[in-house]
Formats: sequence, C-alpha cells, structure tokens
Amino acid sequence: MTTKSLLRRFRISKLMPRMATHTGSPGTVNYVGRKREAPVKMQVMEYHDDDFSEKEIKNISELLPLKNSPMVTWLNVTGVHDTSLIESIGEAFGIHSLVQEDIANTTQRPKLEEYDGYLFVVVKMTYLDHDSGEIVIEQISLIIGQNYILSFQEREEDVLNGLRQRIRTGKGRIRKLGSDYLLYAILDSIIDFYFTVLEHLGDRIEDLEETLLKKADQTLLNDIYRLKQGLIFLRKSIWPMREVISSLQHAEHKLITKQVGVFLRDAYDHTIQVIETVETFRDMASGMQDLYLSTISNKMNEVMKVLTIFAAIFIPLTFLAGVYGMNFHNIPELSWTWGYPAWWGLVVVLGGGMLIYFKRKKWM
Amino acid sequence: MTTKSLLRRFRISKLMPRMATHTGSPGTVNYVGRKREAPVKMQVMEYHDDDFSEKEIKNISELLPLKNSPMVTWLNVTGVHDTSLIESIGEAFGIHSLVQEDIANTTQRPKLEEYDGYLFVVVKMTYLDHDSGEIVIEQISLIIGQNYILSFQEREEDVLNGLRQRIRTGKGRIRKLGSDYLLYAILDSIIDFYFTVLEHLGDRIEDLEETLLKKADQTLLNDIYRLKQGLIFLRKSIWPMREVISSLQHAEHKLITKQVGVFLRDAYDHTIQVIETVETFRDMASGMQDLYLSTISNKMNEVMKVLTIFAAIFIPLTFLAGVYGMNFHNIPELSWTWGYPAWWGLVVVLGGGMLIYFKRKKWM
Amino acid sequence: MTTKSLLRRFRISKLMPRMATHTGSPGTVNYVGRKREAPVKMQVMEYHDDDFSEKEIKNISELLPLKNSPMVTWLNVTGVHDTSLIESIGEAFGIHSLVQEDIANTTQRPKLEEYDGYLFVVVKMTYLDHDSGEIVIEQISLIIGQNYILSFQEREEDVLNGLRQRIRTGKGRIRKLGSDYLLYAILDSIIDFYFTVLEHLGDRIEDLEETLLKKADQTLLNDIYRLKQGLIFLRKSIWPMREVISSLQHAEHKLITKQVGVFLRDAYDHTIQVIETVETFRDMASGMQDLYLSTISNKMNEVMKVLTIFAAIFIPLTFLAGVYGMNFHNIPELSWTWGYPAWWGLVVVLGGGMLIYFKRKKWM
Amino acid sequence: MTTKSLLRRFRISKLMPRMATHTGSPGTVNYVGRKREAPVKMQVMEYHDDDFSEKEIKNISELLPLKNSPMVTWLNVTGVHDTSLIESIGEAFGIHSLVQEDIANTTQRPKLEEYDGYLFVVVKMTYLDHDSGEIVIEQISLIIGQNYILSFQEREEDVLNGLRQRIRTGKGRIRKLGSDYLLYAILDSIIDFYFTVLEHLGDRIEDLEETLLKKADQTLLNDIYRLKQGLIFLRKSIWPMREVISSLQHAEHKLITKQVGVFLRDAYDHTIQVIETVETFRDMASGMQDLYLSTISNKMNEVMKVLTIFAAIFIPLTFLAGVYGMNFHNIPELSWTWGYPAWWGLVVVLGGGMLIYFKRKKWM
Amino acid sequence: MTTKSLLRRFRISKLMPRMATHTGSPGTVNYVGRKREAPVKMQVMEYHDDDFSEKEIKNISELLPLKNSPMVTWLNVTGVHDTSLIESIGEAFGIHSLVQEDIANTTQRPKLEEYDGYLFVVVKMTYLDHDSGEIVIEQISLIIGQNYILSFQEREEDVLNGLRQRIRTGKGRIRKLGSDYLLYAILDSIIDFYFTVLEHLGDRIEDLEETLLKKADQTLLNDIYRLKQGLIFLRKSIWPMREVISSLQHAEHKLITKQVGVFLRDAYDHTIQVIETVETFRDMASGMQDLYLSTISNKMNEVMKVLTIFAAIFIPLTFLAGVYGMNFHNIPELSWTWGYPAWWGLVVVLGGGMLIYFKRKKWM
Repeated sequence: MTTKSLLRRFRISKLMPRMATHTGSPGTVNYVGRKREAPVKMQVMEYHDDDFSEKEIKNISELLPLKNSPMVTWLNVTGVHDTSLIESIGEAFGIHSLVQEDIANTTQRPKLEEYDGYLFVVVKMTYLDHDSGEIVIEQISLIIGQNYILSFQEREEDVLNGLRQRIRTGKGRIRKLGSDYLLYAILDSIIDFYFTVLEHLGDRIEDLEETLLKKADQTLLNDIYRLKQGLIFLRKSIWPMREVISSLQHAEHKLITKQVGVFLRDAYDHTIQVIETVETFRDMASGMQDLYLSTISNKMNEVMKVLTIFAAIFIPLTFLAGVYGMNFHNIPELSWTWGYPAWWGLVVVLGGGMLIYFKRKKWM
Repeated sequence: MTTKSLLRRFRISKLMPRMATHTGSPGTVNYVGRKREAPVKMQVMEYHDDDFSEKEIKNISELLPLKNSPMVTWLNVTGVHDTSLIESIGEAFGIHSLVQEDIANTTQRPKLEEYDGYLFVVVKMTYLDHDSGEIVIEQISLIIGQNYILSFQEREEDVLNGLRQRIRTGKGRIRKLGSDYLLYAILDSIIDFYFTVLEHLGDRIEDLEETLLKKADQTLLNDIYRLKQGLIFLRKSIWPMREVISSLQHAEHKLITKQVGVFLRDAYDHTIQVIETVETFRDMASGMQDLYLSTISNKMNEVMKVLTIFAAIFIPLTFLAGVYGMNFHNIPELSWTWGYPAWWGLVVVLGGGMLIYFKRKKWM
Repeated sequence: MTTKSLLRRFRISKLMPRMATHTGSPGTVNYVGRKREAPVKMQVMEYHDDDFSEKEIKNISELLPLKNSPMVTWLNVTGVHDTSLIESIGEAFGIHSLVQEDIANTTQRPKLEEYDGYLFVVVKMTYLDHDSGEIVIEQISLIIGQNYILSFQEREEDVLNGLRQRIRTGKGRIRKLGSDYLLYAILDSIIDFYFTVLEHLGDRIEDLEETLLKKADQTLLNDIYRLKQGLIFLRKSIWPMREVISSLQHAEHKLITKQVGVFLRDAYDHTIQVIETVETFRDMASGMQDLYLSTISNKMNEVMKVLTIFAAIFIPLTFLAGVYGMNFHNIPELSWTWGYPAWWGLVVVLGGGMLIYFKRKKWM
Repeated sequence: MTTKSLLRRFRISKLMPRMATHTGSPGTVNYVGRKREAPVKMQVMEYHDDDFSEKEIKNISELLPLKNSPMVTWLNVTGVHDTSLIESIGEAFGIHSLVQEDIANTTQRPKLEEYDGYLFVVVKMTYLDHDSGEIVIEQISLIIGQNYILSFQEREEDVLNGLRQRIRTGKGRIRKLGSDYLLYAILDSIIDFYFTVLEHLGDRIEDLEETLLKKADQTLLNDIYRLKQGLIFLRKSIWPMREVISSLQHAEHKLITKQVGVFLRDAYDHTIQVIETVETFRDMASGMQDLYLSTISNKMNEVMKVLTIFAAIFIPLTFLAGVYGMNFHNIPELSWTWGYPAWWGLVVVLGGGMLIYFKRKKWM
Repeated sequence: MTTKSLLRRFRISKLMPRMATHTGSPGTVNYVGRKREAPVKMQVMEYHDDDFSEKEIKNISELLPLKNSPMVTWLNVTGVHDTSLIESIGEAFGIHSLVQEDIANTTQRPKLEEYDGYLFVVVKMTYLDHDSGEIVIEQISLIIGQNYILSFQEREEDVLNGLRQRIRTGKGRIRKLGSDYLLYAILDSIIDFYFTVLEHLGDRIEDLEETLLKKADQTLLNDIYRLKQGLIFLRKSIWPMREVISSLQHAEHKLITKQVGVFLRDAYDHTIQVIETVETFRDMASGMQDLYLSTISNKMNEVMKVLTIFAAIFIPLTFLAGVYGMNFHNIPELSWTWGYPAWWGLVVVLGGGMLIYFKRKKWM
C-alpha cells in the first residue's frame, strides 16, 4: 500500500475545464475556461528570406499594419481570457464573430473551418508540465491568412519554442516558404510533442508491466486506472486532429500550396501513428488490468487453499483431542495402557490421510 | 452503506414514457406520453427589426392571421396532450396528418423531415429539474415555415427563456434575421443546456472518483450504475440530433439561407462535442466501475490473508493445547518437570515458524 | 431462491425453429418449421372506396379470379405447412419457385426481393402470447402485386386484426389507396406490436431494477439472462426490417406510389426507434448485470469480514483457554490466587485490541 | 466433474492446418496442409439435358478432351496433395500458376478471382464427421469455365452427394442449365450444410442452457469454451463467402447468366442468414458464460454464508466451553449449584442472538 | 509456479523503440531507434535475364552509376543509423528530404507514398530471432524507381535470403521481370514470414490450450498475457500493410505493370489472411483468458466447499466435546453410565445429519 505511484493523476478539472455557460447570444465572446489572471502577451515574428524581426506588442493600434505586411507574420497571443482584446484583434483582421467566440472558449473540439480569406484551425497541444510532471492538454487556435498566422493560447509553453528558434536562426526551409508552411510547422511541432508524451507513457507502461509481474497491489491498480483515463483524454484530443489535417490536405484551398501538401501528408501519417499508438496503449492497459485481476484471483485461490488445508487437517484433530479431554466418568479408552500412543497413531493416520488427499487434489 | 448518494436516479419511466398504443389508423393524432392535466398555453412572439409583440393566444381563431404575418412569428404551444388543439393548428397551417401524429407522441426519435413548404424537426431538450435536481429529457417538435416557427412541448421549462429574453430586448442579430436563424437559435440554446447537464455530470464524476480512491461502498456502486444508465439516455437523445443538424446544413432547402449555414456548422460542431463528451464520460464510468471491482477483489484478498494467518497459526496451537488437556491416565509428558515450559517452547517455535513463512510469502 | 421470476423464458426452440433440411433441389417447396397439423385457412378481403367484401376460400379454383379483380385484394393464408397449397397459389399468381420455397420456410431472414410484376417481402411479427405471456416471433411473407397482396403466416394472431377492422369499417384513408398503402399499413401494424412488446420489456426492466437495488438473488440473474437472450432475438428480427423498408422507400418501383413514400418514411423512423430502444435495453441489461455482479462481490466481502472478525478474535482466545485446560502437573499459573481473573483480564485486553484493530481497518 | 461433455472439441490443428512454408518462388505448387497419403481420385460427370455420363479418370491424357466437351463437365479431384497432378490439370485447362499454387494450399481464405476465360473460387465446406461427431471444415477450390467446372478438395465428404444424385436422376432444373447454375448448386449445397451444422450447434446450446440452469460445473465451462472457439472458426469460414457470392452476383461476368443471378441472390440471403445465426450463437454463448460466472459467484457467496454462520455461532461458544475446562484452582463459577445450567443458558442466549442477527442480515 | 513458460516475452522496448525526438526541422535526417554501432553494409544485386552480378559497395561514389544501370538493380542498405550515408544515397537518387527522414526513423507506420519518379514504401518484417526465439519486428523502407529498388533496414535478417537465392540461381520468373515484380517478391517474402510467426504462435496457442484444460497456474496467465500483447504489435504491423498493397494494386502508377497486378492481388489476399488469423488468435486468447478465470472461480468454489464442510461438521462437534470437558462440579451427564456412548451417539447423529444436508445441497 505504500509503493510509490508511477503515474501522476490526470485531473478532469484540468483536462476538461468548465465547459459552458454559453447563455449569451451566439457570437458573443465569453472566456470559457479556468479562471486566470495572468497578463496577456502578444508576440509578433515577421520574416522573409533574410529579413527577420521579433517584438512584443503592447498596444492594439500596432496590430493594424500587421495584416498587410509583405513579410510572413506570426502573431502569438498568450491569454485568451481577455475577451475584449480578442474582439479588437478580430476587428483588425476581419474575423467572424463565431470564430472570436470559439477562440475564447478553451474547451473547443479540434476542427478546421474555412472562411472567406482565412482558415480557422483549433487543435490541442500536449506536453509534460515541468514542475509537476503531469500531462497537460492545452488548446491553441490558429487563424491562417494570406500572409499571416494568428495563434491564441491560454498559457505559455515549450511546444513551439523549437520552431521559434528555427525561424530566428533561419535554419531549414521555414524562411523560404509562406504562411501555409508555417501552419504545417506549427502542427508538426505539436504532433512531435504528442510523441514525447507517448514515449513518457510508454516508459510508464513498461515500468507498470515489470511491477505487475513481480507484485500486484492497489497502487498499481490506481496507476493503471489513471493511465487509462489519461489515454481517454489524449485520444479525444488527437482523433479530430486527423480530420483537420486531412481536410487541410485535400481541400483545394488557395491558401495551401501544392508544395506544402507533401509536408501535410507527412504530418497526417504522424497523426495516424499517434492515434494507433494511443489505441495500442489502451489495449495494453486493458491487458494489464485483466492480468492484474486474474493475478488477484489466483492469489486468493492460493490463500484459500492454505487456509483450507490447515483447517481441514487440524479441526478434526482438535475434535479428537477434545473427546479425550471430556470428564465422563467411564471413558474406557482413557485407562488403556496404550491409549495415549494409540491416539497419536490415529492422529498421524488421519492427518497423513488428509495430506495425501490434498496432494492428490494438487492443492499443495 | 449510509453514505449519501451523489447522484439522483434517472427514472426510465420519466425518460421513456409509455411508448405506444398506436392502435389507431396511421395519421390519427393520439397523445402518447405520461398522463397530464395541465392547461395548454399558446404563446406568440412576432418580431421584425424594431417591431416586437408578444401575446398569449386563447382562441384558435387567432391562429389564422399568424401564418401570413409579415413579421417572423414564433408560436410556442405548451401541452401537446390536447390533441384536438394540435389538429386545429395543423389545419390552420396546413400540416400533414403524420406530422400531427408525431407531435402528439412525445416519444419520437429526433429527426428532420421535409414537407412541401415547411420543415418538421423533432429534438430532445435536457435540463436539471429545479426541485429534484434530476436530469429531465423533454421532447420539442418544431415546424419551420417561410416566416414562422411553431414549437410544441409538453412541459414548461427554462431552456428557451434566455433566447426569448434576447428577442424581447433585441440583443444580438436575432431580430435582423428570419425564421431559419430562429431555428438555429433554438437548437443552439438546446445544445447549450446539454453542456450544462454534462458539466453537472462531470462534477459528479470527479466527486465519485475522489470518493472511489478513498472508500468503495455499495452507494458508490449504485451511483456509477445510475450515471451509466443516465448517459445511455443522454446518448440516445443527442446522437440523432447530429444527423438532424447535418441534414439542415447540407440540404439545399430554400428555407435555410446561406448566411445561417455558417451558424449551423457551429451548432454541428457543438453537437459533436456533446457526443464525444458523453462517450468520454461513458468510458470514464466504465473505468471507475472496473477500478471499483478490482479494489473490492483486492480488499477481499487482504481480508482472506488476515483470516488465514490467524487460523493457520492458532488452529494447530489449539490442537497442541487440546492434546495435553486429554485425560489419558498415562500421558508421560504431563509429569515431566519441564513439560509445561517445553510445551510453550514448542508453541513459540511453531507460531514463529508460521509467521516467518507468511512473511516470506509476502502476506504480511 | 424462491422469488417469482419476473420474466418468462424465451425458448430458442420457439424462436429459432428447425432451420433447414434443404436437401432437396433449390426451388423445391418444403415446409421448414415446427411440425403442425392445424387446418389451413384462406381469407380474402376485397375493397375499393365504398365496396367491401370478405370471404373464406375453400377451393383453389376460387383463387384464379382474384388476381385480376379490379378491387384491392388481400389474400391471407394461415398455415404454410401445406406446401401443395402454396404451389397452387404460386401457379395461380405466377410466383417464382424460389419464392414459394421461401414462403414455406418459416426461418427466413427479413428481406425484400423484386420480381417481374410483384415484390416479395418477408418480415417477422412479434407479440405477447395471450395464454403464456411469452414473447412470440412469427414470420409473415408478403407478395405485393399491382392490385393484390398475398400474405402467408403459420399461426393466427392479433397483430393485423386492428388493420382488418379498419378496412371493414372504412376508417382512415385505407380504402382510398391501393395495394402499396395496404403494404404500408401491414408493416405499420407489425412495427406497432414491436412497441407493445418493448413497452412490456421496459416495464420488466424497471421491475428488475427495483428488485436489484433491494435484493440480488439467482432468480434475478436468470431473469436478466433471459431478458438479454430475448433481446438478441428481437434485434435479429428488427435489424433487417430496416433495410426492407429503406429499400421499399428508395427503390423507384412502379408498385410504390409517391404518396405512400411519405408513409414509408414514417415507418422507417419507427423501425429505427425500435432498433435504438432494443439497443438501449441491451445496454441497460448489461448495466444491471454488472451491478449485480458488483453487488455480489460486495456482499461476499462483507460476509468475509464478519467471518474474519469472529475467527480472528475467538480463535486466539480459545487457544488461551486451551492452555489452562492442559493437565501438566506443574503449571504454576493455575494455583495463583489471581490466576483466573488475570486470565480474564488478558482475554479482555486481547479481544479489545483486536476490535480496535478491525475498527481502524474500517472493517466494522 | 464427471458429467459427459455435450460438445466435442474443435481442434485447431484440424481447423488451421500447417499454414505455410511458402519458401519457394511465388507460383510454385506446394501442398500446404496436413500430411496425407490417401490415393487421388478424379471423377467426371458430363451432362446435357437427357445425356449423362459418369466415370473415374485414371490417366491424365483423358483430361484433354474434357475442356472442349459440348456437355457440361464437372471434374472433381479428391486429394490435392498430389501437386504434380494439379500441375498437369492446370496445363490441360490453361490455369494460371498462382491458381495452381492456391489449390494445393488448403489454408486459403474464401475468395473469388477472375481470370481470362475462367473464374477461380475458393470456399470452405463444413459438416459433421460421421465417426467422431466433430465439426470439420474443409476447403474446396472451384474453377468455372465456359462449359466446365473443376473442383478440388482434399478429403471425400457427403456435402455434394445430394447434388450428384440430382444430376444423375435429372431432377430439378440442373440438367437444363449451364456451368454457372452448377456453380450455384454447389455453393447452395455447401451453405445448406452450414445450416445443418448450425442446427446441431443450436441443439447443443439448448442442452447447455438447460444444464446451466440446473447445475454449473467445469465440464459445462469447457463446453461453452469449445462452442465459442468453434464459432470463431465457422465465422472465419463463412464471412468471406458473403463477399464471394456478392461479387459473383454483381460482377457483370459473361460466365454468369442473368437467369442464375436470381438464384445467387437467394444463396446470398442464405449466407447472410448463416452469418447472423453464427453471431447470434456467439452472443448467446457469451450470455451463458456470463450467467455461469455469476452463478458461481452467487454459490460461492452462499457457501461463504453457511461457513460464516457456523463459525460465528460455534467459535465463541467453544471458547466459552474452553473457559470452564480450565484447571485454575479457584474458578468460583465451577462450584455454583446452578453453574452448569446457567452456562447452558448463556450458550442458548448467545447462539440465539447470533441466529437472530444473521436472520436480520438476510443471510438465512 | 515453476511450470516453464511456453512463450517468450514481447518486449515493448524492442517492438516500440524510442519513438521520437524530432526536435529538428522537418526534413532533417535523424536516426530514431535503439542505439546501434554495427557497421553499415551496402549490397548491390544487378540482374537481367541471364546476366547477374552481386557486390558489396564500400564507397559512395560507386552509387552513382547504379541509378541508370540498364539492369534491374537492388541496393540493400543494412544500418540506417548512419544518417550521412542516407543523405548521400538520397542525393544520388534524387530522394525527397522527408523520405530520407522517414528512412532513418525506424518507428514509422507502414505506408505508401508516391513521389515523382519513384514510390516510397515502408513495411514491417517479422521473424523469430535465432538465438532467443523471440518474435522480432523490424522496419524495412523501400524506394522503387524505374529500374531499381533501394531497401533500408537496421539489422541483418533471414527474411529476404530465400528471395536473394532465387535471384542468384535464376529460378522462377524473377529474372524476367522488372523492379515492380521485385517489389512484389520482397513483399511476398515478408508476408510469408508473418505466416511462419503465426504458425509458431498457433502451436503455442495449442500448447496453452492443452495446459489450460489440465492445470491453470500463474505462468499460464502470464503466457496468455504475453501472447495478447504480442498480437497487439503484430496487428499494428500488418493492418496498414493491407492499405499499402491495396494502393499499389489499384493506383494506376506507371511503375506497376499490369502483369504484376495479378501477383499483387495474391499478396493482398495473403495479407488479409494474416490479418484474419491475427484477429482469430486474439479471439482465441481472450477465450482462453475467460476460461482461465472461470476455472479459477470454479476451483475457489470447490476449495470453499471443502473448507465449509469440514468446518461446519467439526466445529459444532468440538463444541460438544468442550462442553463435557468443563470442570463444573455438578454436570449430571458426566456420571451417567451410558453418558459417554450417548455422547458418541449424538456426535454421529449430528455429523451424519450435516453430511446428508451437504449431500442434498450437492456440495459433495
């Protein structure tokens, strides 16, 4: 009962925050998620072949020139609980009010929606929290325009830092291609982090398996339970992503160039691989749980056998001892010369007979 | 056994009222549902940009002018057990007799049917009952014509009150658009209440989970059972709604304008989200039940071990005591000087041996 | 063990009669079903707007004029074990020999087959047997021609009596429409009886649920088992009916007029509703079974605890009593003045200690 | 433990013979199956309306004239382990080398392949072995040419004997139609034998069910297990047959005439019926297994209760007896006049109290 | 507990190597798999009808002439951890950088991708390790060009040796056909090894089944668990292969000639057969696990009965013995002449009564 748990808990409250109090009119921008007070941050990266600039935006008025910038522009907003800000950005970039509503609602399902002049993509990122080691699932909303991408998320994380670094240093082909490639690069980074989380879970499953074959206790059971619940949430996050990427790939949208199509096919393959691995893990977790239960039954059976052997041998013998402990005046056996040794003989024969019987029944 | 139940019961009789005594001819209007005597109420809302009027209709003759009103007209009928009333309305608006039959039958499956000049939509609303806190599932039938919507339900509820208030105050875009947007707004309000119910269930699941990891008793078991049965009914109500909205969205029906199509896509997404959450909850409930059963098995195993240890140690020792409690005349050990201490020595060795054996078997 | 069973048994032998000894050539008409000797009955109804006649046919020669009657003709044959009769009718109406074979085989799967000039429909009726209260599933084969319907069934039942009465009295639109509407009316009556059976099962499920929460015994278990087996058969009967009606609805067959299409859509909806209810009942039955098993485990756990507490407290104390019942000559404690009270003190301390220990373990 | 098993075992080794040592080049004809030494038999039937001849072929040279015979020719080869013979036949009829390879491999999956000038069909036959009563699954490969059918199987069986007899006696329409009807007739005979096997299993299921409700022991458990394993194999054999017949029916192949299409539709229906019955049996077997397990749990619970009642009543009383069997010198109760009756009074009160307690707990 | 395990363990770490640290830019070639240091080997086979040459390549410059060789060229690279080598080869043959990345990542999912001028195929090979007897799953990446095939794998194995030998000796049609037939031949060899592995597992399942019916212990349980986990991985490897071959077969790609299409259809059939066998094995393994669990329950029930019978008979009798072992001064029965025999009479009656009771309950 004191074994250390191998897995931290997936908290529903974290993975499935307050879902809805959409009591307002449709298209009204309400923040739906855990209450937060962190300040909002707006970061802009602009790049084009050799050009590159990066700055933090403090004032909404700085947003307006971004839309028509000749460079590829990536505006990342951290903190979607500031709904008035989302409305301002929406106005500046001409975003439909339903989209604004969806951005502020951090409990959206991954999806792709086409609007005139831009695409709206919602996906879920996953990563391991630095401090707690817990698996976190976070929503990121993307608006892909001709030459820009707006990304909205609630909390700062590491998932896209590698990508940012590649843009800064100009490594790879990122600087040479447009906003559609940037979209691919963001999705690819997100999927890569799914692999990281899955690898972590894979290690945990191996640990659990090893523990299971040695010793089955309640902690292990709770761990398997947590693992399964966690996989339910990962699955819920990644399944719809498949459709998103598939639609991006097949939709003949002018924003997605043919050149990027090849990369999206690759991202699609990786998504399928994540999905299959999640399903495999679910199967394995179920297998472990079955094994656990069977092991428990097995052990109980053995405990029962030990109990039964002891009881079945000694209870009759104790009865026999009781018989000659009685105080009846005329128990003839008591005064026999060989009474006591004969009694022991009887005990040995009876006890031995029971032992042979249990051996034959393969209980020992 | 006395722990308070966290979940109220879903009553089949409430969720699946008397299903059918369709013994009449098809197209005959018979009320199918729980017997009710509440008076019927007909409320009309008419609106158009700045215009707005609301009244209660007492007389059937008032219905006739509504159909051709230049404003958007929403007639809500509470109480479908008055079948003659439904026939009158059906006649006034030219509704097919099969539709009339379906309106009076509150056990319909959500569906969309196209007729000449109007659409017929049946969906299920869900909400938490004020008094009992129980989840209620209620049918609403909608007839959508060029410029009007007729809605029929059996009981008064809160689901659409927010929408009514928005129409009254003229907030949002509701007043600017036609009956197709009103249809969307009704469906959207209904889906929002699904989220509310799911959030309630999500809280219950978290409570159950917490309780489960601390203490597993029969009440908990019944709660999980109720939760699962309830989810079966929610699932049955929401699944067909997906088809309904999907058909509305894709059908090239002249009553549904393109402008509203975008909103229906959003409603469709929310429906999918409700469905996935229901499925996730089902998975989680199954996971909890599995954990519960394993926990019980585990505990039983431990109880068995305690019993076996006690029995296996003391039953043989009691036998040993019985031996020297016998009254045979010539038991030589009884008169040995060190007989009694030697006996205790034997007891300690045997008992200690058993203890070591059980320690080795990791039973202690 | 003596609780009255809430559900009568579904007998496989009744629901799945002798399946096949098709050893003959294909197209040979062999009766396949339970042996029966009941006399064959042929009833004819002819109607047209105001005209209506009804008679029983005794002689095969009377069949010939029926085919070309200007009125809508419904010939119902009760007793398909008379294969020579089926062959005669088949000849009179020009029915393919494979169809004749299928009519005589009462173990067909529901299906729709189009032939030149007529449609062949096989469906399963279900109803509650008057006497035994058992659920009966019976086959009905229908041949739909331009102006006539031939129906074949093995046993007389009530399912279509309501419809016959409506034809006799001329209520509803039945007399005004052709043989395609009659087909719809027959199917609709059959589906309505599914609802009746389901309602009966729904009541049983509620009863079972109530019993389950109070008291779980073997009778209940057998009832759940029977319920599940029965639902398997209902499911097998209704699923293919969905395809049958869907094909009728969509096939552009000249025998099915557009006017009747609307009604078939309604029948299709009802079929889906039956299917969903059957699936829901299956889910509920599984849920009850799970709850039952968990409850048993739970109870076993409690029984075990009681046993363990008694055994663990009294077995050591009995040992202690045995110690001082021994007849060793020099047991010093026996002659101590306070020996006996001290012994009781020890017993109280040990027993009380055990009680406290079990309280702490939450076993009491 | 001695109850006679109701079901014979399905042996994997029989149902899934050595699968593959395809180490040779593709298109090399190697016998894949259980080693056999039985002599090969080649039987030819030729027929046409009134003509009919039947002979056994001993020499490969006799094969050549068969291909262009004006009559419908059916060559049945029993014993596919003679691979050189298959090659000779393949050469004579111009069969692709991959087809030859597949014929010799008795572990094929049912399939239909179209080649220039002929169709290649592999299906599985099933029947009850005369001697052992076991269910046997055997492969039959068919090559259907313009005017001939070649059939290959490893062992002689009864499945097609009825068909052969019909050809001999000229009953039914078999002699009037071509090789496509012969193909249908072969498939139909095979499906009919599936029904025979299913009927046999259906009887077994009823027997098992009856036994189950009376008495649940290990033999029954093994029987249910065998039944399930057997159904897995039947399922594996029949599922792909559905595709085979469906393809035959829909493929616009010149070898399949329209006239035979109607018969193939009938065969397709029967295949579906076999599939559904197999699935139903699987569901029923699972249901029985669940009931069995629950019954065992239930019984264990009752056994436990009996044990607990006995132990809880008599262990404390035995302790009480032990107390006054102690040899302490000054146990005052021993010398009380009413000591012994008072002790009995205490025993009755305690024992009775326990009995009342257990009655209240509904354990008795 | 000491029974030898029949199945070796499938190690996740072996079957699912480090999945991803794709932190680099997409298209960057990083080795993803277990760390390895084995030297890289490049083997070239060139053949054409009668011509055949085979050599090992040591220098990258030797690669260039291969692409345009008039013969069919098969370059096999063993050791994909040398990423710079992969890049060189990629450059020489004009391979897309994403393909290069995928080759170096040994955790890909089987897939087919079409590029200009070549096809990229990833599949999983499986075989039994010579030394350990473990099942190994290994990735092989294939690039199929007009006249060449490049194959990449991490470890040397036997799977393709038979094929190599056939090329060397010029047996079969391999030398007469192009690179598309070589692709088929490689896939066919890989599938054949799946059959070998499945046959091995089939033998194990039979062994397990036989053991299961004789004796159910923990080792067996672990074996069934390993079997199931192993099947999960085999399934994950073979399922996507179906799509790969299906796409190859249907895609109208100029690299795949019609002649080879027939062979691909055959390979497709074999793949389906592998998949179905894997599924059947999974079903059988589940069946065995269920049987195992039921058997355990059954045994536990019997153990419990033995215990209960012993306890219920002897505990009351021991109490009776205790009664007359008491030292009350005035126990009248003790001095009765027939007291002792009467006591034995009571014991026999009570014990016999219990025995009859248990016989009636069918516990014995």
